[in-house]
Amino acid sequence: MSTTATSTSPGHGLERLALNTATTKRWTLEEAADGCVRAEIPGIGLWRDRVQEIGAEKAATVLRDRGLTVTSLCRGGFFTAAEAAARRAAREDNRRAIEEAATVGTDVLVLVCGGLPVGSRDLPAARATVTEAIADLAPYARDHGIKLAIEPLHPMFCADRAVVSTLAQALDMADEISAPNIGVAVDTYHVWWDPQLYKEIARAGAASRIFAFQVCDWVLPLPEDALLGRGHVGDGHIDIPAITRAVVEAGYTGLVEVEIFNQQIWHTPGDQTLALMSARHRAHLSPLL
Amino acid sequence: MSTTATSTSPGHGLERLALNTATTKRWTLEEAADGCVRAEIPGIGLWRDRVQEIGAEKAATVLRDRGLTVTSLCRGGFFTAAEAAARRAAREDNRRAIEEAATVGTDVLVLVCGGLPVGSRDLPAARATVTEAIADLAPYARDHGIKLAIEPLHPMFCADRAVVSTLAQALDMADEISAPNIGVAVDTYHVWWDPQLYKEIARAGAASRIFAFQVCDWVLPLPEDALLGRGHVGDGHIDIPAITRAVVEAGYTGLVEVEIFNQQIWHTPGDQTLALMSARHRAHLSPLL
Repeated sequence: MSTTATSTSPGHGLERLALNTATTKRWTLEEAADGCVRAEIPGIGLWRDRVQEIGAEKAATVLRDRGLTVTSLCRGGFFTAAEAAARRAAREDNRRAIEEAATVGTDVLVLVCGGLPVGSRDLPAARATVTEAIADLAPYARDHGIKLAIEPLHPMFCADRAVVSTLAQALDMADEISAPNIGVAVDTYHVWWDPQLYKEIARAGAASRIFAFQVCDWVLPLPEDALLGRGHVGDGHIDIPAITRAVVEAGYTGLVEVEIFNQQIWHTPGDQTLALMSARHRAHLSPLL
Repeated sequence: MSTTATSTSPGHGLERLALNTATTKRWTLEEAADGCVRAEIPGIGLWRDRVQEIGAEKAATVLRDRGLTVTSLCRGGFFTAAEAAARRAAREDNRRAIEEAATVGTDVLVLVCGGLPVGSRDLPAARATVTEAIADLAPYARDHGIKLAIEPLHPMFCADRAVVSTLAQALDMADEISAPNIGVAVDTYHVWWDPQLYKEIARAGAASRIFAFQVCDWVLPLPEDALLGRGHVGDGHIDIPAITRAVVEAGYTGLVEVEIFNQQIWHTPGDQTLALMSARHRAHLSPLL
């Protein structure tokens, strides 16, 4: 490993940048952590697969040794299985995710809530199941010092990944559950199109419910696997600075995670990806933060 | 042409069914009209390309001779070009579409409003452009006896096809324009995921603004061209009966158009497609109408 710089220099414009490890999918957690150090990126958001490879305790040590801020753990959720036993198993798994989040040293678990149960078209029922499951998890999360960030996913994922489709809906759920550790993850890719976006970001901020802010861009055409159609900030159609400004004005003081699912970026050497995302962060976001 | 039945028998369950000609893309307008007669489908929604092939006057004769109800003309819109000259040309073209709609014998022109202008990320500005363009067209449409149905498109088309993404947004635009001939087209494919759907359908009905109701299903996986991922009623994840019930309860008394963009269906012989859509209509929708 060759490192050119290992400490974060003040004023380098990356003080509020975090790498979400999904962006550098081929890196292990340790490789990603070292990459962040080399790139002077102070934060890192984790996916559970790479944490579990080495265990949460070891992951915590790796990250602490490198002085990284862990912005979030991704992801809990998938509450909507058709079978009761599978739904119970999902809740158990979410308790493990809460424990892992606490162990690795973050206070945020991001929730991708799950799509329609197989064979069901009852969207209101699936949505009620999600609310109920999160309400059930909230005390356990609180006892571990963990905030649950409901992530509205783009409506094109409503059937198969998340029946939570808008920020307003996620905030309504949080209001219904009425616990201070229930909030939202705002991801530009999922919410940019929403006519109510700015109003709902302000509402989320006023309720102190913005627990995570993730950025990536909407690039066209959509690829065959619609999950992978995301691009670097500035490469697509989203006015990411405008959304960032709104999130900051709403009182968000945390780091900005770059989370990009894109096969081509996954084939790019990680250091190159981190250099590009740092450049884009400096150009488009850091002046606003 | 071999016809087995040419008159609509009462009680056959298809009294409120219409074929949208996009579903049988390879048919000419005359072939589609004959197909409807053979299948005892009383209504037809038209796309302009097939009308223009023979001219609106001739199309009107073809449809009138067969006793078909023309439910809509698709489509006007695409108001958001970057260049002023192109935007003016679009408005001119929309006036021609209004004239064509009146000539072919429908009172509804469906509007697909256009995506972000090339090179722009200013979604609020694009949306304002759309509202202004429709307000500008409204009197011309009224003078031709034409209602303009703003079609919210699924948010996955926000960048490239329609910055109108929800029923609420389309109704807000209609309220702002405040003309009785401005309303909405409700297409199950585009709106099914919306947490506000039932509330907004009721609102649209109360304001007498549901001008068209189109159905097709959400099937997974999405194909490479996301436009073409639609399926026959019952083949996907949408609770189409629930949405139909809401539209009927909101006071909609018109026909139900089946509009499916799907390469495989386009390769299927048209009569077979009409037979299947008729069977699905009888099974899922006609008891509710």
